[in-house]
Amino acid sequence: MKQCYWLWYPGDFELYHAMQQNFSRVERGYGWPAFWKSEGVRHRVVFRRSYHLEQETSFCVLSKSVGYVLAGEKKYPFGKEILCGPGEVDVSVHAGCIEAFPNIYVKGDIICSDEGWMTEDYDQSAVPAGKNRYFTREEQDPTRWEYSEKCFEPVSETECVGGMLFEFETELTAVLQVEYTDGYRPIRICCGESAEEALDPVHCYYSWEPDPDTGLCPRCALRFAFVPGVRKGEVHLTALHQYVDIPVRADFCCDNEKINAIWNVAEHTFRLCSGIFFIDGVKRDKWIWSGDAYQSFFVNQYLFADPDIDQRTLIALRGNDPMTTHINTIMDYSLFWILGIKKHYEAYGDLRFVKQMYPKMCSLMGFCQKQTDEHGFIVGRKKDWVYIDWADFDKEGPVCAEQMLYAACWKAMEEISVLLGEDSQKFQENYAQLKETIPAFFWDEEKGAFIDSYVSGKRHVTRHANIFAVLYDIADDMQQENIIQNVINNDEIPAITTPYFNFFALDMLCQMGKFQEVWDTLHNYWGGMLDRGAVTFWEEYDPMVPVKAQYDMYGDRFGKSLCHAWSASPIYFLARYFMGLKFTQTGGTGFVLEPQLSFFSSFQCTLPVGEKNVRMNWDGKQLKIFTECAGGTVQINGKIYSLCPGEELCI
Amino acid sequence: MKQCYWLWYPGDFELYHAMQQNFSRVERGYGWPAFWKSEGVRHRVVFRRSYHLEQETSFCVLSKSVGYVLAGEKKYPFGKEILCGPGEVDVSVHAGCIEAFPNIYVKGDIICSDEGWMTEDYDQSAVPAGKNRYFTREEQDPTRWEYSEKCFEPVSETECVGGMLFEFETELTAVLQVEYTDGYRPIRICCGESAEEALDPVHCYYSWEPDPDTGLCPRCALRFAFVPGVRKGEVHLTALHQYVDIPVRADFCCDNEKINAIWNVAEHTFRLCSGIFFIDGVKRDKWIWSGDAYQSFFVNQYLFADPDIDQRTLIALRGNDPMTTHINTIMDYSLFWILGIKKHYEAYGDLRFVKQMYPKMCSLMGFCQKQTDEHGFIVGRKKDWVYIDWADFDKEGPVCAEQMLYAACWKAMEEISVLLGEDSQKFQENYAQLKETIPAFFWDEEKGAFIDSYVSGKRHVTRHANIFAVLYDIADDMQQENIIQNVINNDEIPAITTPYFNFFALDMLCQMGKFQEVWDTLHNYWGGMLDRGAVTFWEEYDPMVPVKAQYDMYGDRFGKSLCHAWSASPIYFLARYFMGLKFTQTGGTGFVLEPQLSFFSSFQCTLPVGEKNVRMNWDGKQLKIFTECAGGTVQINGKIYSLCPGEELCI
Repeated sequence: MKQCYWLWYPGDFELYHAMQQNFSRVERGYGWPAFWKSEGVRHRVVFRRSYHLEQETSFCVLSKSVGYVLAGEKKYPFGKEILCGPGEVDVSVHAGCIEAFPNIYVKGDIICSDEGWMTEDYDQSAVPAGKNRYFTREEQDPTRWEYSEKCFEPVSETECVGGMLFEFETELTAVLQVEYTDGYRPIRICCGESAEEALDPVHCYYSWEPDPDTGLCPRCALRFAFVPGVRKGEVHLTALHQYVDIPVRADFCCDNEKINAIWNVAEHTFRLCSGIFFIDGVKRDKWIWSGDAYQSFFVNQYLFADPDIDQRTLIALRGNDPMTTHINTIMDYSLFWILGIKKHYEAYGDLRFVKQMYPKMCSLMGFCQKQTDEHGFIVGRKKDWVYIDWADFDKEGPVCAEQMLYAACWKAMEEISVLLGEDSQKFQENYAQLKETIPAFFWDEEKGAFIDSYVSGKRHVTRHANIFAVLYDIADDMQQENIIQNVINNDEIPAITTPYFNFFALDMLCQMGKFQEVWDTLHNYWGGMLDRGAVTFWEEYDPMVPVKAQYDMYGDRFGKSLCHAWSASPIYFLARYFMGLKFTQTGGTGFVLEPQLSFFSSFQCTLPVGEKNVRMNWDGKQLKIFTECAGGTVQINGKIYSLCPGEELCI
Repeated sequence: MKQCYWLWYPGDFELYHAMQQNFSRVERGYGWPAFWKSEGVRHRVVFRRSYHLEQETSFCVLSKSVGYVLAGEKKYPFGKEILCGPGEVDVSVHAGCIEAFPNIYVKGDIICSDEGWMTEDYDQSAVPAGKNRYFTREEQDPTRWEYSEKCFEPVSETECVGGMLFEFETELTAVLQVEYTDGYRPIRICCGESAEEALDPVHCYYSWEPDPDTGLCPRCALRFAFVPGVRKGEVHLTALHQYVDIPVRADFCCDNEKINAIWNVAEHTFRLCSGIFFIDGVKRDKWIWSGDAYQSFFVNQYLFADPDIDQRTLIALRGNDPMTTHINTIMDYSLFWILGIKKHYEAYGDLRFVKQMYPKMCSLMGFCQKQTDEHGFIVGRKKDWVYIDWADFDKEGPVCAEQMLYAACWKAMEEISVLLGEDSQKFQENYAQLKETIPAFFWDEEKGAFIDSYVSGKRHVTRHANIFAVLYDIADDMQQENIIQNVINNDEIPAITTPYFNFFALDMLCQMGKFQEVWDTLHNYWGGMLDRGAVTFWEEYDPMVPVKAQYDMYGDRFGKSLCHAWSASPIYFLARYFMGLKFTQTGGTGFVLEPQLSFFSSFQCTLPVGEKNVRMNWDGKQLKIFTECAGGTVQINGKIYSLCPGEELCI
């Protein structure tokens, strides 16, 4: 029996579930669907395949759509056995669906929904049908995601403020199930990422009346649940944690307990935020944000090394052509999508996917190009959100940091078009032009730094553009030295305050070899959250904020997301820089290990390299390395050692 | 209390119900969704309105969408009473819906969903919210059309071929309801537009097993119903005819019984095919076709004079921008859409609607322009259907009849852009160019006629291009005379065989004053169907086909639709030409009555003029005319009489 899949028009599955995801935000009783263009799916498609049949064969098409099967000249309904052959037979399946996206499953010995089906939407040319590795069984429904479930009992039950407070061992995305000792009675359950939130029936985000028949509440993020008006033993709560089971392939443990805890909490944070898509946070927004997802791609490579979630996220973010508004309405988030495709390709080497996305990459860049000024700089339009970071920028005219990203995108376009054998010249020219004009307009000789805006005359310097200048290779060596001295090591330039931008800041520091600073930041910033009892890493953390106000954000006393993907980046810093696993070829086919031994008395780790793993063990004296995969070297104290698959290397 | 409406993003209602309509075709157990691009709706929209409130007021937003109400700075869930004011208050309603289109109903004394709400889809600029006159009550759901119902009992019940044949008085679009004399038993009901179809359980289009609980079958077209295996009295059938109640405003009766019957059967045919949209036929296809709808606009003006169904149909047909494929995949059907807007404007004078459609008119013409050749002629692309009619054309290179329509579209664009105060020059130039190049390339001096193709060298003449040349004013006077002689009155040129194109042919003959020919065609062609027992007019009728095969079409023995809108055109010919009601100003503000008295010994008729009526009574000697509306004259035997509203004129 061949492996069969549910089939649909490529992208429809992701766009449909992305809408479900982006419309799932709930706050205190009302829904808050994401405030950007929400992309529809196709409603009428046809699937086609030609067969040369040696003998008669039978098949059956399953679908909840409206439609029919055309086999040769004859039409058949769905769900009926169809006999055809021998000889040449064209099979087409016509399907329409209004409330979701058309999808089909074909079962049969010869004619079945394996690889090779093409699909058309009566708009564009035929393309290979879309599918998903999770939807392979005929009894499934691709419009309903099937979560894995794990049952959690409370770790504590405390009587307080006239009710019962239940605590679970960690944060979960769970359906609460209630059992009543003395039969059903109407209750209300207040959930919280913190005990404080759960105990505040007015301000907690989620509160539910369990379904009287099933005892179930809607799925939501929670660690604590408070039931007012009940006493110990009157109700029993269970949390059915629902998650997408993406195997964790990395493993890390060292002599430093704080660092171990940071890794583990980051891992848990990241797993919670890795569902059908990479989302920002599990309590809030539960939305798919391009800039957030971009950082998740970096962590993913070192933790799950799962290309599928990258791809689902990238497809969902980009939506349909024509592009008329920026991804998430944010200009820089459109640009990160291009850089995300490049990052994804480098990590997994899947050129087929890049090829599939290429027309949409081109149309995105074409859309951006329509909003450039006479120097070729990209400028936000009236409704565009020029974000970069929550920080004070001088946003008059073209903004420097946006140009850095924009240049990096043209560079990415150039590289990818070369890989695909497409014409790269225009992309190369655009990049070359920006690489010249950005410094010409934005480099301030006197300040020795890039300024936000050359239009305003304010010559305002922020770290952001200067960090991008290093990361995206816009600054030359002399400028890089200047940047370190005049910006990075200059306390007068406001510090980065968000974990979001700290990702770039720390990445740059690591690339410059400033490991100690990063190590200290891990301890202080992420360690600081642990000291305050974090079991997942927060959207934002300011050590100066008093404990009482630590969950406050956006002027809302529980507004802060306590489990936010962009705070899981310690995985990436520890794996890539401290364990020193750097990839020199796409898809993990070439890599070098350069562990920073001096930071550890001992460690052991397993990290994914392509579809295989590398393992290291350091006991303070000897480093043992075992890898299953080819293409690796180790670099220690300036010496280079080759790694042989299946052989342990001791240094 | 102000008149409130359900609100949505304009067009969504029509696009959603059009998908429902175009996916409703069923044939012998399988669905057959229309084979063209099926347009999705918006899924995330916001409705906005600003109020200056004299005092505090309360309102409530109803919606099945996901979302919230923002009143001032505060968010509220749907369904809850909201207090606000006094003072300036901005109200916005955020709504997301995946399975249908977001829609809201706002109830309150001051703040309510009356006129004046704007809506945005996070893509285009804000536009006035969409609404529909049928959806004004809070308990309604705009995703479910509420049909009017009328109950029909069978007019005969006959035992035959081992079952019972039920006949209803005419064709219906009905839900059959079954009652069982001796309790439920599983039965099958075979429906038919003809008795022959109902009695053929294998080949009939619709056959149903009634729902065991309700006794109901799905809605379908039927006049006959056959229940095999039951005897008289065992089951009782009722037909719940479901229809959109568009009032018939015209009334016609004359001394000629055949003509009266033709009017009545055409009226019934047209009413059945006028639902939420103008559809082609009620058994098949039940699809919204642009060319078919174009003809319905002409009949509508004289029968219902209902602008709303025109507008719903036009909006549904055009779909969303960007335009990437032709309407219904047919190049000429795209062009008829433009001409349909013009026709609609002329009939009802609704410039607001034209203005709303104008951007889509421009983008449609822009789309067409992308497929023109070096002479500016429109040429079908690979997947375009160049239809014109079911007839033998020489379709090599640009097809003449398409150019006629294309030129007429530029002319329409010019006229409409002038009305809207938009720049018309380019349109005028395009029209002028085509008016010159079409004859230059397609007029064959020797044949004295337009030829289909100048590329092939075959010089093939059909009636179609020549009819369009007259109707759309491409032929000059000399050419028109030539066309009459060499084409219209030339038996060697194949006759028009479809009722579809007979509309254009007869319209042209009427315009040329050849009433006798049209009168004869009414008698022979439409009268011929009556002679064969038609209660609705057929998709096609060939007097030469034996009775036994008269329901056969597309190689299917019951393939022919027996109730097809494009065969209802006698209404138009009788009203416009024989009753002679011609409009000289848009929206019925100017008209002339020129009845062809010589064809009648007597008649009486009422016809809609704008929102009012005109009545005529002819007894063979005296013509009495009464009108409620201004702007009318009567022309009899070369004399012109003015009509005064409210006064009867006797001639």
